[in-house]
Amino acid sequence: MGKRIVIIGGVAAGPKAASRIKRVMPEADVTLIDQDNLISYGGCGIPYYVSGDVSDESELRSTSFHMLRDSYFFTQAKGVRTLTSTRALAIDRQGRTVAVEDLATGKKSVIPYDNLMLATGSQPCVPPIPGNDADGVFTISDLHKAIEIKERISKGQVGKAVVIGGGAIGIEMAEALTDLWGIETALIEYMDQLLPRIVDWPMATALANHLREHNVEVYLGEAAAEIVVEDGKAVGVKTARRTLAADLVILAVGVRPRSQLAREAGLHVAANGAIVVNERMQTSDPAIYAAGDCVEIRHLVTGGSLYAPLGSLANKEGRVAADNMAGIPSVFRGGIGSFIMKAFDMAIGATGLSLEAALAQGYQAEISLTTPFDRAHFFPGVELLCLELVFDRRTRKVLGFQGIGPMNDSLSVRIDAAAVAITAGATIDDFGNIEMAYAPPFSSAIDPINAAAYTAENLCDSRMRQVDLREFLQWMGDVSTRPDWVILDVRHEKQAAPNVEKFGAATWLSMPYDTVRTRYRELPTDKTLIIFCNAGSRSYEIQVFLDSVGCSNSMVLPGGFIIVRHVAPDLLA
Amino acid sequence: MGKRIVIIGGVAAGPKAASRIKRVMPEADVTLIDQDNLISYGGCGIPYYVSGDVSDESELRSTSFHMLRDSYFFTQAKGVRTLTSTRALAIDRQGRTVAVEDLATGKKSVIPYDNLMLATGSQPCVPPIPGNDADGVFTISDLHKAIEIKERISKGQVGKAVVIGGGAIGIEMAEALTDLWGIETALIEYMDQLLPRIVDWPMATALANHLREHNVEVYLGEAAAEIVVEDGKAVGVKTARRTLAADLVILAVGVRPRSQLAREAGLHVAANGAIVVNERMQTSDPAIYAAGDCVEIRHLVTGGSLYAPLGSLANKEGRVAADNMAGIPSVFRGGIGSFIMKAFDMAIGATGLSLEAALAQGYQAEISLTTPFDRAHFFPGVELLCLELVFDRRTRKVLGFQGIGPMNDSLSVRIDAAAVAITAGATIDDFGNIEMAYAPPFSSAIDPINAAAYTAENLCDSRMRQVDLREFLQWMGDVSTRPDWVILDVRHEKQAAPNVEKFGAATWLSMPYDTVRTRYRELPTDKTLIIFCNAGSRSYEIQVFLDSVGCSNSMVLPGGFIIVRHVAPDLLA
Repeated sequence: MGKRIVIIGGVAAGPKAASRIKRVMPEADVTLIDQDNLISYGGCGIPYYVSGDVSDESELRSTSFHMLRDSYFFTQAKGVRTLTSTRALAIDRQGRTVAVEDLATGKKSVIPYDNLMLATGSQPCVPPIPGNDADGVFTISDLHKAIEIKERISKGQVGKAVVIGGGAIGIEMAEALTDLWGIETALIEYMDQLLPRIVDWPMATALANHLREHNVEVYLGEAAAEIVVEDGKAVGVKTARRTLAADLVILAVGVRPRSQLAREAGLHVAANGAIVVNERMQTSDPAIYAAGDCVEIRHLVTGGSLYAPLGSLANKEGRVAADNMAGIPSVFRGGIGSFIMKAFDMAIGATGLSLEAALAQGYQAEISLTTPFDRAHFFPGVELLCLELVFDRRTRKVLGFQGIGPMNDSLSVRIDAAAVAITAGATIDDFGNIEMAYAPPFSSAIDPINAAAYTAENLCDSRMRQVDLREFLQWMGDVSTRPDWVILDVRHEKQAAPNVEKFGAATWLSMPYDTVRTRYRELPTDKTLIIFCNAGSRSYEIQVFLDSVGCSNSMVLPGGFIIVRHVAPDLLA
Repeated sequence: MGKRIVIIGGVAAGPKAASRIKRVMPEADVTLIDQDNLISYGGCGIPYYVSGDVSDESELRSTSFHMLRDSYFFTQAKGVRTLTSTRALAIDRQGRTVAVEDLATGKKSVIPYDNLMLATGSQPCVPPIPGNDADGVFTISDLHKAIEIKERISKGQVGKAVVIGGGAIGIEMAEALTDLWGIETALIEYMDQLLPRIVDWPMATALANHLREHNVEVYLGEAAAEIVVEDGKAVGVKTARRTLAADLVILAVGVRPRSQLAREAGLHVAANGAIVVNERMQTSDPAIYAAGDCVEIRHLVTGGSLYAPLGSLANKEGRVAADNMAGIPSVFRGGIGSFIMKAFDMAIGATGLSLEAALAQGYQAEISLTTPFDRAHFFPGVELLCLELVFDRRTRKVLGFQGIGPMNDSLSVRIDAAAVAITAGATIDDFGNIEMAYAPPFSSAIDPINAAAYTAENLCDSRMRQVDLREFLQWMGDVSTRPDWVILDVRHEKQAAPNVEKFGAATWLSMPYDTVRTRYRELPTDKTLIIFCNAGSRSYEIQVFLDSVGCSNSMVLPGGFIIVRHVAPDLLA
């Protein structure tokens, strides 16, 4: 008989490892255990199943060649003994056995192993508030919950919904409910922005505005204090400021590693509950491996740890664990937390550190904010991106890259290229020379990723001074707060005119880009000029020119009109 | 007065450098010279102007904020003295001057420089065949030619066209003529595939089939021997095999560096005519820089030289040249030849070395061919990619990556990520762990780039044996040539049935994937099994299983049914 390998957990890392082991070590005796009866599914597809984009839950459990990934499949096609509805109760590390219980029969037994792999995944956090267990309250933890939600919706039982939690799953669920079912949906996030710790506030604010435009009510900085219950059924959600009616409440406040088995077996577990593994995906017991949402990995920017419960990482980790159990010395060095999601007509993504995270880690972090076109500006169908490149002024290293864009793959292109470069330790100078494949239907001669780096270089080398976007918005909200500031709008006079009218010519000065070299003497010298254009690049050129003629009293608004339109759509005319 | 910098050439690298110098060294005295009256245009956009996607040529010469980039613009907005219709005649390196002629007046003068930059670009090769200068014969060398072509078309003077040359520009022009104007268009390429030296034959063949489906006649391995001329006008193109009627003949057989000035000034010029520069974009005369289509750069995979006349590289090189002339020690390390283009509904791209190029360079090169979905297979609108990863068996390094896909950005995503990784020296093992941002609307949990690397690993580690695709096609064309080969189709029986019927059960054996573990004893042991599925991954699993039970007489068809459908659409039922 071959090596006995037991894998606990059958969603992503587990099935991946089981299948890989049988390919590299066909004689191995592999057992896959899961307490659920449904296994090997694309959990990330749940919002699209609820929305109806994916018509049947079985599609999330099928291969690309339409074969259901059930016990039969793993046994027959993969040669993996698969025990579903079977719970692992305890690990005997000395005896190298796992005690299990058949949940259908209650029968207990013991399974011996040479190598054990924990792929126990994560479980949703449930906020400890009254009503959290009422009928109509759901976490998005597994397919059964998703099936039940969809059933209620399709029976017409849901007119209003409240989603608690403004992370990816909460936002995707809000879209699913609003967009395809027309359910009146509110989203509550207790932090003051969506996607906290993943993107910085400009992107998060643009996203919140986009959700609101698509009829999702978004409440930031509000905690759900109570789920209002009548006759055992959830009917609303209370915050400190309001009560929102709801037939359906989705709890999406994050997940935590499911690591009780590991902890009880005395394996090394981090403070957040994640199982600690080395680059071979080995736990503190060399015979036991772990992968997927239950582990933490190395953060390849900070050198610290990263907890990133993503199906994409789970699969890679599972494969490496499998290799090592089969005697192939593969390594998984870690990750940098690449992220992307769809929200209605918008894509939003990030990789590496946000500015906030970078500052918290002690970097001399700064950002370049740019608003380039996603392909040649003359090509039909061109759209705009907003990009933020986070860099360390001391080492010139790029620490992170994030952005929003239209709902196509153009943001994905830049996030993924940035991720590879950041992982390789690229500086802003390296980013400036990243070779993006170019033709007008796909890119610009100067790709958005290069342009973002150029702006970062100009900042890092102190050739450009910018105004903080938030300060700018505050001032625009009440221009009397800074009587020494004045806008220098270098766009065409026709573009400037509505704001000259709105804010007055003393605050909003129009002088087109191509006339500044001859007219700059007309500019006030006793005020700080906030140079303003569509995207920020003309403003930078004008700043450099003004500096060269001794007028150094200016700041550039990075991202220009385009970024303002995203973060504060009603502010400017 | 500031440093005197003279730049010869005003299309891409030249204007970029001129503008950059004025930003980093505003006091510099910059002169930009071009023999044409139209400057600073997106030459890569010409096919889209001819097609009508871009309605006016001025769009190719305008900024993203709709300002025409003419002499006025460079003088007023950029502070660059701009001399159009001015030809540089000779460089006096001792005296540091350039002799120029005003083409309108014939007046000659001498311009002194502290630094000179050559951005003289490239010129189209003209095949030395009879009739190459007839009326109706065009190269795509500049905007004037493009304007004239479009005028003839819009006046209804072109019913039939022949494009000579199957590179990017030829293909883009063939699409422009056929797709939007309905012109009967033939494309002639003297090599036996399209895009020679850029992609390998499977991708090139899929592309040729796609062009044919869109009514472009494609003739490969045929040289244009003569342009047939009547009354001074081109009326057709003759090859050894046929004469094609034509009102319009496009010559698109490549470009060569325009480096006569450099050569006459005694600068170091390579055998192909490209100016030799270092990482600072400095020529063999330290006072003279060069950038763009007139230079060769370092190939970052081979360490040799790379001639890649692309607007995207020209801009980067121009910026680096500018920095150095302004005293900033920027470097441009080189490139790996990233490429992408649209052809009707198809995107085709490549980066690094093709298999052919890699073998010619002496690598132990092999390929993995895969046909993955471009996003989660259950997500609406999902499409297929065909990818080829070229790796070196000895060092495990990835040498190149190429593919075809639908006309969206999904191929671009993978080409660009691959380019960054290859530039960083990534191995196939590194590629397996590239962290692509994942959500079902954008990617798969196992991204196509990772899956391509997994297949390469399996090949490199001799866990997988594949049949050469070309040999497979030859055999399928006449199965009697290899009586010892038999197909093992592991797809569903219904999918296998049409080919079992077409080729006979002795040649085309059907045994579904999930039944092989129980039925393998039925398989012939005296034949070589060619394992066949949709994409190749099930075939690999079956091969591993068969090996484990002692049946090692099999080969996998990489890319499966999907690749065959692309390269030989009529071969299989």
